[in-house]
Amino acid sequence: MRDLPLLPLLLTAVEATATIAFALSGLLEAARKRLDAVGVCVVAGLAAFGGGTLRDVLLDRRPFFWVEHAVWLWALLALCVGAMAWLRARHFAPTEKAMQWPDALGLGLFSAGGTQLALAQGLPPIVAVLMGVVTATFGGVLRDIVCNEIPSAFRDHRPYAVCAFIGGWVLVGGHALGLPDGATVLAAAGTATGLRGLALLTDYRLPQWSSDGEASDGKR
Amino acid sequence: MRDLPLLPLLLTAVEATATIAFALSGLLEAARKRLDAVGVCVVAGLAAFGGGTLRDVLLDRRPFFWVEHAVWLWALLALCVGAMAWLRARHFAPTEKAMQWPDALGLGLFSAGGTQLALAQGLPPIVAVLMGVVTATFGGVLRDIVCNEIPSAFRDHRPYAVCAFIGGWVLVGGHALGLPDGATVLAAAGTATGLRGLALLTDYRLPQWSSDGEASDGKR
Amino acid sequence: MRDLPLLPLLLTAVEATATIAFALSGLLEAARKRLDAVGVCVVAGLAAFGGGTLRDVLLDRRPFFWVEHAVWLWALLALCVGAMAWLRARHFAPTEKAMQWPDALGLGLFSAGGTQLALAQGLPPIVAVLMGVVTATFGGVLRDIVCNEIPSAFRDHRPYAVCAFIGGWVLVGGHALGLPDGATVLAAAGTATGLRGLALLTDYRLPQWSSDGEASDGKR
Repeated sequence: MRDLPLLPLLLTAVEATATIAFALSGLLEAARKRLDAVGVCVVAGLAAFGGGTLRDVLLDRRPFFWVEHAVWLWALLALCVGAMAWLRARHFAPTEKAMQWPDALGLGLFSAGGTQLALAQGLPPIVAVLMGVVTATFGGVLRDIVCNEIPSAFRDHRPYAVCAFIGGWVLVGGHALGLPDGATVLAAAGTATGLRGLALLTDYRLPQWSSDGEASDGKR
Repeated sequence: MRDLPLLPLLLTAVEATATIAFALSGLLEAARKRLDAVGVCVVAGLAAFGGGTLRDVLLDRRPFFWVEHAVWLWALLALCVGAMAWLRARHFAPTEKAMQWPDALGLGLFSAGGTQLALAQGLPPIVAVLMGVVTATFGGVLRDIVCNEIPSAFRDHRPYAVCAFIGGWVLVGGHALGLPDGATVLAAAGTATGLRGLALLTDYRLPQWSSDGEASDGKR
Repeated sequence: MRDLPLLPLLLTAVEATATIAFALSGLLEAARKRLDAVGVCVVAGLAAFGGGTLRDVLLDRRPFFWVEHAVWLWALLALCVGAMAWLRARHFAPTEKAMQWPDALGLGLFSAGGTQLALAQGLPPIVAVLMGVVTATFGGVLRDIVCNEIPSAFRDHRPYAVCAFIGGWVLVGGHALGLPDGATVLAAAGTATGLRGLALLTDYRLPQWSSDGEASDGKR
């Protein structure tokens, strides 16, 4: 039994779970906005793969994840068809609540992975951390932009990008101390996921910076 | 007369007609949103060239079409100035209706072209088909995003991207069977354009997947 | 005293001032939309660096400005934290008014710089001028898209992109005449900034091209 590559298998399982959670967040938003089947697939795909793709465009990396592993596109399509059937029969709310935790896993995993990739390219620490944040959060940002919403990561006063940001610095720190890559990535991902989980459990909110009387809502 | 390159000439004429149809779709949406002259030109340009440009960014291809053939940018500018004068004097509705058919031509031509390009780069079939869909539809998607609308391709329950998707698979099939490129591209473009035309004629709608009672409109 | 590199210093000072003006425009819009601290930083960053980054993606140039000079990201972060404290205590309007002039400086400087870069790559004049316009204005465009607004550069009927466009042609002209680069860039930047300043002073508006009766507001 010793020969079974358990850790890579586990990692792939976590990655798949997190990607599905991201895709489902797109699916649910598309459903709320009453998009058609095409819109559902595109928005789910953007939520799942948009962050990593944007990071790769910025870092000028090819091939994209979904080009190298095109089977994921089929999996996404199958997920969308299945989810449309499932959502048709049930309520959305339980799905959304159930997705918070795999989504937090993805936040840690993808931000640590993105930061690690950028560090390996020799980019400055602050840029690498930023690339991790982009990887983990810009799928959701693109999802919200296409659905004509201000991205929730920018306005819900919950720590989300902030957790990825802190996790990224853990990775940079471990890298600077010469710790082994695996342990560092795990610590970074664990920090981001842990902080996000803590925020969910305690219903923590980012400090308000604008007093209500001064900020007016409409632009013009 | 045998020496006249009739087919390339015809192809260029079709391409120009379709590009103008795409640009006009942007122009009309910009007009509806009361954009100024700058906005009209940008939105028309996005609608006309945005899909192919996004595809080229994703495939890391340069130069863009409008860099290699910069005269098209002048043509776009002239079209916008002319159309602003024309629209000022007349109604929009007839223009929009008249544009449905050249737009369907563009859907077939650009999706087949994009798929062909991606296949030639050795990308997996599903990715190539997707690149065709991006080429043909994401100009309109960018147009709608800039105009602060949910992209109509994602919510009008009409087959548009779906036609490009099916046409793309015709191309992949012809390619796999070793058929000549010209015939395959023509068959793929014809399939996409034909299906779109059929959908327009029969007023066909994609099957509803969400029951009305469950999807609520507001996000929060 | 002759050895002091006064001109480069001055240029850097102007560039920093203009970048801060761009960032503040993002900050103010984020504040109006009641974004949280993450949203404020992202929107400010997009407004400051988005135009140049988009230009570099289109031209396939790396590294980005903010990768090569990562200290600017720290400066942006500091600016955002400081501005959130400042805005909390005071009104927005004076800040916005005060920013019009450094913003006009940035319009000239960044459009001339972008055009010059694209010309140096051997791109056609119209493309180079367009790249200048993208550099100077698409930070604001991305800022507005993320904030779920139609970009103000496309609808406020004020000459903004138009000034950058005209300035770009001054640069192309100087280049064609073989004038020295420094003088040409200065003339181009001065033209764009000057025209913008003139438009601000005279409250000039672009000619209306649509008659009110015909354009209806909602799309559907």
